[in-house]
Amino acid sequence: MKKALIIGAGGGIGSALVARLEGYEAVLVGRDTRKLAAAQRPGDQVVPTDVTSELEVEALFADLEPVDLLVYAAGTIEPAPLGTMTADVWTRTLEANLTGLAYVLKYAENRLNPGARVFVLGARPELVTVRGLGAYAAAKAGVAALVGVAAQEFRRKASFTLVLPKAVDTAFWENVGKPPKDALRPEAVAEAVVKSLGGEPERELRVG
Amino acid sequence: MKKALIIGAGGGIGSALVARLEGYEAVLVGRDTRKLAAAQRPGDQVVPTDVTSELEVEALFADLEPVDLLVYAAGTIEPAPLGTMTADVWTRTLEANLTGLAYVLKYAENRLNPGARVFVLGARPELVTVRGLGAYAAAKAGVAALVGVAAQEFRRKASFTLVLPKAVDTAFWENVGKPPKDALRPEAVAEAVVKSLGGEPERELRVG
Repeated sequence: MKKALIIGAGGGIGSALVARLEGYEAVLVGRDTRKLAAAQRPGDQVVPTDVTSELEVEALFADLEPVDLLVYAAGTIEPAPLGTMTADVWTRTLEANLTGLAYVLKYAENRLNPGARVFVLGARPELVTVRGLGAYAAAKAGVAALVGVAAQEFRRKASFTLVLPKAVDTAFWENVGKPPKDALRPEAVAEAVVKSLGGEPERELRVG
Repeated sequence: MKKALIIGAGGGIGSALVARLEGYEAVLVGRDTRKLAAAQRPGDQVVPTDVTSELEVEALFADLEPVDLLVYAAGTIEPAPLGTMTADVWTRTLEANLTGLAYVLKYAENRLNPGARVFVLGARPELVTVRGLGAYAAAKAGVAALVGVAAQEFRRKASFTLVLPKAVDTAFWENVGKPPKDALRPEAVAEAVVKSLGGEPERELRVG
């Protein structure tokens, strides 16, 4: 069996992906143990971890077998106009979406099997460069840049795919309001990732 | 006299800009008091401030008269591959380039005269999406996104210009090595900003 590490496995997209991940034993990572347990399949392992803590990320990888697939689907969104944004909201948004990814990549580098695939959830700039989403837009733009650099630094070890869905109907939207009417189901994103995983690596995977 | 607030006024681009800023009384902001004093002209004010501290940014704006021009030219670069980057380097890079800008915009919103111009130093993605610059590339991508959102949120108050120079020959490069042979002089960037300031607002200002 191949090995997968799914960061944000308790979320809408992460859990939908785990459910479709045939042929992989997965390590499910996130903060909410109950959601991780709900996503867990026989053979999967649950490791509750806050990826915004470097110590926790280091501990996660210390015990991890090398993986063939790494997915970063963690993140948070809390809309706030720049003029009234608290430092807490700014920091949480940057850390969950971007700094967590940097920590995961740091410790993942030596835990990737040759030819490993890495999928990172991004956001389409044209959908998030809107009033109230400054922190989120900045974090996700950072994610895209970080994936671009990681693809070069890790190019002998892994192939990176930045996943760019249109709006997805997940609990993520609870902080924002209702998802748009034409929002994707998280299953559609999961299916697109699984399909891409079965083919040649793509730098970007646009869904919807 | 018009009023200007120059963040990073002790740096290469910031100080070159102050020297060319005719018709403006400027408040010079940065961490290095000696560099700020060296850039100061008669009538300019020096306010040593660490813009990565929200409290210091709040204090800066509490005493500030409204400005007609705001320039964010602060930043730092410390190359490190993702696999060995320390949390310190990551955090410093994100904070000086990106979080400082978020704090400045937060408190600047009510300190901008009608029709104010805002110039923010960005980086060209194609120049920074390279090995060793993961943190810097992520931070500057975030800057571009943040400017895009701010331009919408502040659109009745100010016009934003993202400045995208090619490599500039400043002390900035001390952490990276030598600047490229064809690097711009900081004076060339300053002149381009002054020229843009004299014309209609541009969303992007590419220099070099």
